[in-house]
Amino acid sequence: MASSSKARVPAFNDPDLDKMKRTLVTACRILDREGITDGYGHVSARVPGTTSFLTIANVSPGLASVDRLIMMDCDGAYLGGAETPPNEWPIHARVLKVRPDVMSVCHTHSVWSTLFSVLPIKLRPLHQYGKFLPADGLPVYEAAGLVRTVERGDALAAALGRGPAVLMRAHGDTVVGDSIEQAVHRSVRLARVGELLHLALLHGEPRYLSAEELETFSADERFPARGWEYYVSRLGKRG
Amino acid sequence: MASSSKARVPAFNDPDLDKMKRTLVTACRILDREGITDGYGHVSARVPGTTSFLTIANVSPGLASVDRLIMMDCDGAYLGGAETPPNEWPIHARVLKVRPDVMSVCHTHSVWSTLFSVLPIKLRPLHQYGKFLPADGLPVYEAAGLVRTVERGDALAAALGRGPAVLMRAHGDTVVGDSIEQAVHRSVRLARVGELLHLALLHGEPRYLSAEELETFSADERFPARGWEYYVSRLGKRG
Amino acid sequence: MASSSKARVPAFNDPDLDKMKRTLVTACRILDREGITDGYGHVSARVPGTTSFLTIANVSPGLASVDRLIMMDCDGAYLGGAETPPNEWPIHARVLKVRPDVMSVCHTHSVWSTLFSVLPIKLRPLHQYGKFLPADGLPVYEAAGLVRTVERGDALAAALGRGPAVLMRAHGDTVVGDSIEQAVHRSVRLARVGELLHLALLHGEPRYLSAEELETFSADERFPARGWEYYVSRLGKRG
Amino acid sequence: MASSSKARVPAFNDPDLDKMKRTLVTACRILDREGITDGYGHVSARVPGTTSFLTIANVSPGLASVDRLIMMDCDGAYLGGAETPPNEWPIHARVLKVRPDVMSVCHTHSVWSTLFSVLPIKLRPLHQYGKFLPADGLPVYEAAGLVRTVERGDALAAALGRGPAVLMRAHGDTVVGDSIEQAVHRSVRLARVGELLHLALLHGEPRYLSAEELETFSADERFPARGWEYYVSRLGKRG
Repeated sequence: MASSSKARVPAFNDPDLDKMKRTLVTACRILDREGITDGYGHVSARVPGTTSFLTIANVSPGLASVDRLIMMDCDGAYLGGAETPPNEWPIHARVLKVRPDVMSVCHTHSVWSTLFSVLPIKLRPLHQYGKFLPADGLPVYEAAGLVRTVERGDALAAALGRGPAVLMRAHGDTVVGDSIEQAVHRSVRLARVGELLHLALLHGEPRYLSAEELETFSADERFPARGWEYYVSRLGKRG
Repeated sequence: MASSSKARVPAFNDPDLDKMKRTLVTACRILDREGITDGYGHVSARVPGTTSFLTIANVSPGLASVDRLIMMDCDGAYLGGAETPPNEWPIHARVLKVRPDVMSVCHTHSVWSTLFSVLPIKLRPLHQYGKFLPADGLPVYEAAGLVRTVERGDALAAALGRGPAVLMRAHGDTVVGDSIEQAVHRSVRLARVGELLHLALLHGEPRYLSAEELETFSADERFPARGWEYYVSRLGKRG
Repeated sequence: MASSSKARVPAFNDPDLDKMKRTLVTACRILDREGITDGYGHVSARVPGTTSFLTIANVSPGLASVDRLIMMDCDGAYLGGAETPPNEWPIHARVLKVRPDVMSVCHTHSVWSTLFSVLPIKLRPLHQYGKFLPADGLPVYEAAGLVRTVERGDALAAALGRGPAVLMRAHGDTVVGDSIEQAVHRSVRLARVGELLHLALLHGEPRYLSAEELETFSADERFPARGWEYYVSRLGKRG
Repeated sequence: MASSSKARVPAFNDPDLDKMKRTLVTACRILDREGITDGYGHVSARVPGTTSFLTIANVSPGLASVDRLIMMDCDGAYLGGAETPPNEWPIHARVLKVRPDVMSVCHTHSVWSTLFSVLPIKLRPLHQYGKFLPADGLPVYEAAGLVRTVERGDALAAALGRGPAVLMRAHGDTVVGDSIEQAVHRSVRLARVGELLHLALLHGEPRYLSAEELETFSADERFPARGWEYYVSRLGKRG
């Protein structure tokens, strides 16, 4: 488990965290700009080598700023920064606790994730943007309501399992990545896949991507730098 | 009834009303910005302790300003401010008259409310944003046409009953709250719930939120400050 | 017929036409801003008391300016202004010729009008915004292709008949009004009605407005001043 | 074949290419602005009389600039400009190689093209904007995944055949034209046709344009100058 490899946790104001903080603020703003969250999503990033993480305080992602970041550990202890944690900090804490491979977690209220969370239909990949998704579709965390307790966070993490994302019934999704950029890129693309699946299902059974096809894609999930540059370029423009 | 607890009604220009006026103008602009009204919705706010209220004159909510507010009582008497009442002032007057718990009323032309107003399908909560809605769905005020008479206002208030909102056939909705912020927040969220329900119904029977689940949410409807901050931040940007 | 009441036609540069020209330019820009045309719609306005009219030259409505207006008569004679008539001038010329009650004609490429033009389903009013529409729905001009000849213009005018609007198969619509403002307002509202009808039909048979209900509305179609003010306010902002 | 008529290929910095470069940059930005690509489409233009072409380097089309253009030949040789070719340069190279009539190629991720690429339904013209399309619909390149090899480029070109466009399964489309402007115009219009077909199919069998009707349109595909002016005018405004 990740806890066995805990490095010293730097102070919240350690300059070593500056770049991560700026990237986290940008990530929050991208989710807002790309229309897959509203006033209520959030992004977190693991302090490398630790089970501590940075996330935004109880504020809308579109209003994120370095001053409104907070540092916590996976059990919810306050480690610095803005004093009000987001209501749903256990989403981040408990996923990061049991997934040492995960460096960043996005929680969004994407309409497409929310849609498939209330349908008896799996969100499966049929667009190449879904190449990071399992061929048999995403799991759904069934309990409605906010994830404000460690117990709920643990249940969400269990539903996520080893996968890239989990839908949250009547609520949205949680998406993980090996970097902030990858988690954001996956979140945006999950919305695009969900939208396409919705559209396609209205006309009958679409052609999904098979497990074999997805395997041939696996080397391809390497564009976050280009995607990131694009998302950043859109932050100054409304659309 | 509210009329038994009438306080002295302040003059329209009483500085005590300044904050409420500014909030009301902001509320109108939020409904416009969030795309749930067009040139024809309005918001009202009760003067505390009275059956009088402030609303916008006969002008589009996106063009609201303090100069274009009007004060009226629940029987339609003019009490100050801009001289042209909105055509549908009885919506506000008659709901505020019989619902002393209500401090603010929003009337929007949301496409999602209008959609469910013409369908034989109830708008029921299936998204956590609908936690303020009754599990068995919203009533519909069946009479088509503008609500320009006291009689129609009374009929609308009767259709609303003790609930949080009523759909208006071929027209839109009326939503109430215990503050301007809550009424606006509910109006925006009602649109999101209606949109999700529309999308979900295209794929079969969705999983609604049960009465039991809604009850566990009840303590949660407390975010208007954060939602409000977010909506306000979007007013300067077109999207 | 209108031709029997021909007044003297003023010169294109007659200052008496200045206000009409400015309104026409604004009308073109509103159709563009409201998203119901793209690079290819147009608006015309009758010179009062004549069978001549002003419209925009062969340019996108979003790029309209007084310098790019043209004056023509109903038989296509050039009477002044920009020298290149719009390709589809016969739409305007031939409708204005046989409908002396009409002062303005809008031709848009609204996706909703185009949709119902290719479906075996009538675009009927089910939203109060459709109160100017016939209860049994709009006619469709069946010939695909641009209306670039007098013959086609006459056929379109015949399909329109005495009504407020006609859909054009695979193409869009033509909407008339007793003022520029009314024709624009109706064009925008026709799009809203078409959108709602599309959405509602996906869920079964909606409740349409009956002929009796529409009759009670008839006195209500009087808001262009307020609608117009709203549309104009949006011209400076992208959304 | 085109290779038999190879002219001398000018140097990348030859001033004769300046206008083409600027048009190509504009074309990329238009595809982004019109919402039919995201961070991953591209446009190319043949150097007249050669089998060489200009396209954008590995950068989002919305971020195109003259500095980020690259010149290549149809076999992938680097001929100047930015050093990183787009991953999918074989799309352009291999289509231009076998289609001497084609002067420009657009590759987009239009949601509507992607939709019909995963459905057992042909994207056929039912809107006059589809007048450049075959009456029996567009072919689909069935292999999922990026087109990063000459072999895949050749297979895509074979699927395109002599036609105006080919859908790419789980991916998007490739559209060709006899000028940059025409290829862009067709790309935008293909999206509009696909959107309308999607909407219409939800209501049953729409009326398609027949081969005879399409033939009468053929002289009409001549508007790129006006369409281009419109698209350019929108580049400075977000919408």
